[in-house]
Amino acid sequence: MFEIDLERLAKGARESSVTLHRQLKAAIVDGRLRPGTRLPPVRKAARLLGVSRNTAVKVYEKLLTEGHVVARRGSGTYVAASARAAPSRVATGLTAKLEARLNEVWLRPDLTAAMGFWRDRPEAAGLLARSNSVDFRPALIDSRLFPFDLFRRLVARQLRGLEKQPPRFKSPQGNQGNYHLRDAIAKHIALTRAVACLPGDIVVTSGAQQAFDLLARALVKPNETVVAIENPGYPPMRAAFAAAGAKLVPVGVDAEGLVLEQLPPDVGVICVCPSHQFPLGITMSARRRKALVEFAHKHGAIVVEDDYDGEFRYDGSPLQALRASDSADVVFYVGTFSKCMLPALRLGFIVAPRWAMQVLVVAKNCLDWHCPTLIQLAVAGFITDGHLARHVRKMRQIYQKRRLALSAALQRDFGEFLEPLPSFYGMHVAAVARPGLNLERVADALLDGHVKIHTLTRYYVTPRPREGLVFGYGAADVAQIERGLGLLRKALPK
Amino acid sequence: MFEIDLERLAKGARESSVTLHRQLKAAIVDGRLRPGTRLPPVRKAARLLGVSRNTAVKVYEKLLTEGHVVARRGSGTYVAASARAAPSRVATGLTAKLEARLNEVWLRPDLTAAMGFWRDRPEAAGLLARSNSVDFRPALIDSRLFPFDLFRRLVARQLRGLEKQPPRFKSPQGNQGNYHLRDAIAKHIALTRAVACLPGDIVVTSGAQQAFDLLARALVKPNETVVAIENPGYPPMRAAFAAAGAKLVPVGVDAEGLVLEQLPPDVGVICVCPSHQFPLGITMSARRRKALVEFAHKHGAIVVEDDYDGEFRYDGSPLQALRASDSADVVFYVGTFSKCMLPALRLGFIVAPRWAMQVLVVAKNCLDWHCPTLIQLAVAGFITDGHLARHVRKMRQIYQKRRLALSAALQRDFGEFLEPLPSFYGMHVAAVARPGLNLERVADALLDGHVKIHTLTRYYVTPRPREGLVFGYGAADVAQIERGLGLLRKALPK
Repeated sequence: MFEIDLERLAKGARESSVTLHRQLKAAIVDGRLRPGTRLPPVRKAARLLGVSRNTAVKVYEKLLTEGHVVARRGSGTYVAASARAAPSRVATGLTAKLEARLNEVWLRPDLTAAMGFWRDRPEAAGLLARSNSVDFRPALIDSRLFPFDLFRRLVARQLRGLEKQPPRFKSPQGNQGNYHLRDAIAKHIALTRAVACLPGDIVVTSGAQQAFDLLARALVKPNETVVAIENPGYPPMRAAFAAAGAKLVPVGVDAEGLVLEQLPPDVGVICVCPSHQFPLGITMSARRRKALVEFAHKHGAIVVEDDYDGEFRYDGSPLQALRASDSADVVFYVGTFSKCMLPALRLGFIVAPRWAMQVLVVAKNCLDWHCPTLIQLAVAGFITDGHLARHVRKMRQIYQKRRLALSAALQRDFGEFLEPLPSFYGMHVAAVARPGLNLERVADALLDGHVKIHTLTRYYVTPRPREGLVFGYGAADVAQIERGLGLLRKALPK
Repeated sequence: MFEIDLERLAKGARESSVTLHRQLKAAIVDGRLRPGTRLPPVRKAARLLGVSRNTAVKVYEKLLTEGHVVARRGSGTYVAASARAAPSRVATGLTAKLEARLNEVWLRPDLTAAMGFWRDRPEAAGLLARSNSVDFRPALIDSRLFPFDLFRRLVARQLRGLEKQPPRFKSPQGNQGNYHLRDAIAKHIALTRAVACLPGDIVVTSGAQQAFDLLARALVKPNETVVAIENPGYPPMRAAFAAAGAKLVPVGVDAEGLVLEQLPPDVGVICVCPSHQFPLGITMSARRRKALVEFAHKHGAIVVEDDYDGEFRYDGSPLQALRASDSADVVFYVGTFSKCMLPALRLGFIVAPRWAMQVLVVAKNCLDWHCPTLIQLAVAGFITDGHLARHVRKMRQIYQKRRLALSAALQRDFGEFLEPLPSFYGMHVAAVARPGLNLERVADALLDGHVKIHTLTRYYVTPRPREGLVFGYGAADVAQIERGLGLLRKALPK
């Protein structure tokens, strides 16, 4: 049935990847190829469509990059779920006309998939509400260990202070972020990340996500700027750049970090996680860092450094951030309080080069003026009173225990299946699979046992990802890690 | 000197407004015509440039719409200050290359001017810090009267609740806004604004500004969508649409509201303040509302209703919002807690048609995931415990007293100079000038007496604005109003 559709589509198609890509895309967008439909393997598709194998590969990769199809290693290529694919009602003439006014960038399946990267099959949601569930997903933290009582007193103190403020507009400096908070951030990252900057170099944002959106809107000229993203990488970051009209170019990651040879010469912005690559967990080598900054200086390219969990380093003194004094002109450093405090605070920041600050502040004003004053002041107090340093110290010990328990178990019981990648920061470790494992099926089976774990696949934008698993221990304590790994062991071949 | 420049520019220019516009724009952008340079009056420019008066008018209006020049009634047309105009240091080769990567939309003088609409000459900032200053600027509120103690208790209660939450990702519903808050908002606006909607129709935003930005990004196709804005209007709203790539079309406002005859037939989005036009203060008539909704239905156009102070109505029962059951398919209603609670909370919302909700939530996720949980929960509690209704009642009485004092004084002492426009909502009244007054000079003189007041000029995007003053009484109490008007009287002709 599918093959007939495909043959009909291919009828009259010239041996051109462009034409074929357009036809397949149209079939997906208008629903002739339904979400979830499995496309034939490349070799078979080439034969069916009467094109060369090379052409078929090209077409598949293009569809993948655009998000029209998704690839699952070992299981094939599927038509992606699209925001437009499941209309809940028949649109009337007027509604259809109104819907056509929507900026279609938000309907792009790659973008909607990226924003929902953390989701699993819908029926799994119920399973995980259970008390015996284990959540290995990365980018979560254990908020139960946050000192809420302390924070409550700080918030109350700040509210008493706000009461005495006269009514006024925020000055541009105020919109850049509360001065006390920016001052506190500058001192905090000098200590924890060896980033030397002044309060004037910082813009406070609504979490790292707004930092990405703000940078995308400030640094991307729609349909012109080429933005390199790590592949695999953090999907919502690339979504922000895609939404701003960037031409995304996925660039591979090897043991030392981003593979610079894959950077296109016309790249304008390069997005990296040098401290703790998301999701691979590796740290960019000193040599690679040096080469990256040299590349940026040589080509006038901009580097966006996402340092989401740089405070949590387990091995010796903190490695310097990529953003150092000799790279301050080209690196935009993004930090967040989501990992070291609470994601619900929605507070992050950018350390930006001087030449961009004026534009960033205008853009931040236009986006939402500034972040809530109360939250900014409370976090400023939390830092200056020393609570953040204490909390990070405490959590580093807790996460380190989990990390060691996880590593030990992975080495002891999973050596024939998984090879953990070196990881010295944060709250997750990735492990690549020995050949021949179908981890999608394993992860899927684990869901029924109330264990949520991600394979690497969802973090790739190109087909043929490395097969592997991501073990987040931000939300899973030692007991849960043991339970989860026990179930994983059972789900793997005997 | 200027005239020589202009003549040189005009040399070889054909009698074409397009060519002439391009040349003048280039001269402004590259700095040959410096910020603050006064352009010759239209008649003189036409003579100097050897073009018809019509052509000169066209060119001036285009430069105005783009923000390259600003017009001050009675004083002429000036080259606008541009973000690029005052480099603080000589850019090196690398910095120049990096700066060229910035999305130039943020350097557009119309956009930077719009985001700084509330600013006055820089040296005035010091004057207004004095205790005897009077601030008549609109869009401010008297935050000293907010029940901080109550709010503090609510925040503490919510923080105790958050402590018990397990770590997790926000569901899409969570990113649409906390359910309790959306439920509370739905009930609140049903009562105060007769807007009937369900929690599922609401997206919580970081203030009205993020609502504008979110709508602009969801509803504008860059360089394609035509967006009608009120002229005069609220500058940061049009900035959000300009930044998203909208083709802005300024549409006039008469005694009944937006002049529908001026709407271009291809308009995609129409932005209005029907309850209390900003800054004119008038209310859109029932007849005009009906015609606007009919227009939207007929043309498949979208209406964005900015209802920033609709809770504060002084004359009888609340007039229904534009967003009613028969317009729920085309109207996006924007509300905010900046006026009825505190701007520092950065909390607002959109009531959106069903067909757009999925896209709005994806876009909100991409912008910053969601608003800070603590603030959302505290405001939800403030509403459901009845504090918001009580606070609005209290403030309505206070603002009403100020409004009456202001109106009485305007009628008693200023009749020969100013004609107040009818205004039944909010915290400001506009008054248009009798012919022959130079209010720019008056407002400027008042600054030295520590009185900050806006003329209507800065709210227009086209030349030849109505001459008038805006009297905000959100931040000025009765005593300050009297002092301010006393000084105004002295600044006017005998």
